Order: sequence, then C-alpha cells, then structure tokens
Amino acid sequence: MNLLIFQPEDLREDGTVRLSGRRLRHALEVLRAAEGDLLRVGLLGGQTGTAEVLRAAGDELVLRPSLTEAPPLRPGIDLLLALPRPKALRKVLPAAASLGVDRIVLVNAARVEKSYFESRVLEPESIRELLLLGLEQARDTRLPEVLVRERFRPFVEDEIDALWPLAQRLIAHPGARAAPARDPRRVALAVGPEGGWVPFEVELLAARGFEPFTLGPRTLRVEVAVAYALGALRGL
Amino acid sequence: MNLLIFQPEDLREDGTVRLSGRRLRHALEVLRAAEGDLLRVGLLGGQTGTAEVLRAAGDELVLRPSLTEAPPLRPGIDLLLALPRPKALRKVLPAAASLGVDRIVLVNAARVEKSYFESRVLEPESIRELLLLGLEQARDTRLPEVLVRERFRPFVEDEIDALWPLAQRLIAHPGARAAPARDPRRVALAVGPEGGWVPFEVELLAARGFEPFTLGPRTLRVEVAVAYALGALRGL
Repeated sequence: MNLLIFQPEDLREDGTVRLSGRRLRHALEVLRAAEGDLLRVGLLGGQTGTAEVLRAAGDELVLRPSLTEAPPLRPGIDLLLALPRPKALRKVLPAAASLGVDRIVLVNAARVEKSYFESRVLEPESIRELLLLGLEQARDTRLPEVLVRERFRPFVEDEIDALWPLAQRLIAHPGARAAPARDPRRVALAVGPEGGWVPFEVELLAARGFEPFTLGPRTLRVEVAVAYALGALRGL
Repeated sequence: MNLLIFQPEDLREDGTVRLSGRRLRHALEVLRAAEGDLLRVGLLGGQTGTAEVLRAAGDELVLRPSLTEAPPLRPGIDLLLALPRPKALRKVLPAAASLGVDRIVLVNAARVEKSYFESRVLEPESIRELLLLGLEQARDTRLPEVLVRERFRPFVEDEIDALWPLAQRLIAHPGARAAPARDPRRVALAVGPEGGWVPFEVELLAARGFEPFTLGPRTLRVEVAVAYALGALRGL
C-alpha cells in the first residue's frame, strides 16, 4: 500500500479523517504510524497529498490531510475482458486499476465457464476491494467503473456504441497482424479468454469496428496480457 | 498448463515418454487425458508438438510425442531485477518466463531487504518450478537463466560488461524521460525495487551505459511493471 485512501464520508467537519479496519491495521503494522508522522494519503476520486498522524491507536487512526496533488495521469484505456476465472480475476482487477484503466467490462464468451459468473469475487464489495488494492499500489484515487455482462451478443450489439462512441477499438487475437498506430482517442481494448475468442465473437466485434491485432505468439495469463498490452499501446 | 513439458531424461529408447508427479496429476485431473488423446507437449529446451496418450493411469502417463514445431519467438530481452520480496518473486518469475525473457539477474539493492536472499523461493528447484509454470503457460520450452547476486557494486562493475557486451542497456526509473527507440540489439532492462533505485545505484548503472527511462507516473507491482515494460519495448 503506497497510498492510504479515504473516502468523502471519512472526512469530519474539523478537516480530520478517522480510519479503521484494514487501513488502520496497515498503518499500524506495516507503516508503523505514530503521532506526528506524515503519511501519503488520497481522497477516493480526488486529490492526493500527505496527512499528519494525530492519533494512532488500536481502535483508530486520526489524520489531518493536506491534499495538494493530482493523481497520476491516466492512459485513456478501457478494457473489454472475457470474464476470467475467479483466481485470475483477483489478479487482473488490481493490475488494471494500478495501470489506470478507466472502465472494465467483464463479458461472457464461448470459452468462459458459466460458473464464473456465480463467483463471490464478482460481488460489488469484492470488486471494489480488489480495485482499491490497485489504486493504493499506484497512488491513484479513481476507481475504474466495472460492468458485468452475462450475454455477449446483446452487449456487443446494443451497448458498445453507446459506451465507446468515439474510441479506437482493438481486439487482441492470436495470429492477427500488429496493431495500427495508436491515435489520440480513447482505446477500447478487448482481451479474450485464455482459450481465445471463437470466430463468431471476433466477427461480431470486428463488425463493431474492433480491429484484430496480435499480442505475439505467446499465450499469456490475463493479468500479464493486460499489462503487456497497455505497455504496447503506450510505446516507449 | 497449455503445454506438457518433458525433459530429455524422460524420453525412453522406444521414443515414448513417461511422466509422473505434477504433470501426471494435471494430465489426469485437468486435461482428463485418456488413451488415444492428443496432448500438446514440448521437450525442455527443444521443439514442441503433440503426443498420443498410450497409457493414462494413477501411477504414470505414457506418451508418444511428435515434435515438429519451434517454440515461440523470443523478444531478446534480459532482466536485471532488484530482488523482489518472496511473494512477488513467485509471481514475476513465471511472468518473465511466459514472456520469453532469456536471462534474469536477481541483484541486491539498497531498498531490498537482506532477508529476501534467505527465502526458500530462491532455491534452484523452486526457481526452476516457477519458471516451468511460465513456460507451460506460454507454450515455450526454454528456461531462462537465473543468476542471484548478493552484492550490487561488484556485480555491476565486474560482470555486466561480460554478460551484456553489446546490449542496449535501459534502466526503468521514475521521472526519467521516455526511452529511446529500441534498436535491433538485445535489451538488458533494469527494474528496481518497489521503492526505486537509490541515486548511487542509478549512477553506477548509468556509468555502465544504462539509459534511464520512465515507465510512467505509476508505482507498479514488479510483475506488472515487467510485463508493461516488455510490451512497451515491443510497441504495437
């Protein structure tokens, strides 16, 4: 945790913040916060900065924050992800949040097991905690929006144009050619399940303007593929 | 596991292969291998292909391999990594192997805790198993070479020129400028500990031709940073 994130409702009228639970434990046990220390903090959805520790005890951490910095710039990338297995979802959500992805759509696909949609990882509170881990890691404060869609075709046909009216649409697909140069628009990047998209899915996405490109000849874990693709879309 | 990897010593004189242990269990429990099935296999350090299952039982899996394909192309990248904490090392080794990194040097740095060098993750058998997971994932067969160096300065001063005589040397460092275009040479990419390299380390590496460049304003987990950097070095 490189940033202690608090929420608007943690702010009290006197300008101090009171934290408990996981963040309190982390501050005490890992950061060894003591009265007078300065911690890096951020307001969820807002600015970052430092906070003076006014009180650090077993039951509460009281801070006086001074929020003067903008969170890090965002790359302008959204993800359309075939819903990964729960274990992989636990890794890709923090990774995507740490990379500054703005929106993640978790969609069904032919090679996604139906049971994944019943996973407790998909509960809103679980998704939120996993995203917060990524924000804390990258010192960001803005939670990505996460949408879960159990039906692939209606999502593609009825929602994509509204979600990404102007985006450069790309679909990672083995064997396709290298991607066109990134243009200044937002990118909507589709990444398939481990077994890949089936032809029907590629065709349906291509009909909506998703241009197939390859991430190379290697089958990567989804969290590695997402980080690799975001690096590739940035270039050096 | 997308590739069942066997070793030269698993090959018997009649051209068949006998597997036990983790690979046997995976073949039976996950792939549900049965007599007559075709599995994707690879010879460690060699070709890949398919294998007919001759026998699949609780005690052994007997295969007849036909190795006709080259493993996937490699990006020509070596890593110089400040030794990550054991939990992170368990993630970055499979990720790096899956991405086709050829050599990984795990080096000490000011912000690396000494105790990390005593971790059991660093035992050769453990490193090998973690790398194999990455190869199985990416259908590759070539184990990266891993070197562990407990002293930073002697490594940099005495070994780097011999290890990477002709490589393009790059060091990821926050606040530096974007990297120069990648040229056709091998890349040696230095990635620091989570807290970053200290100035002395950057200077010592810069004196050996490591050009500082930034991976962006975000503090990334090492396994995410490595995948992101490899994507960025490739470009799309």
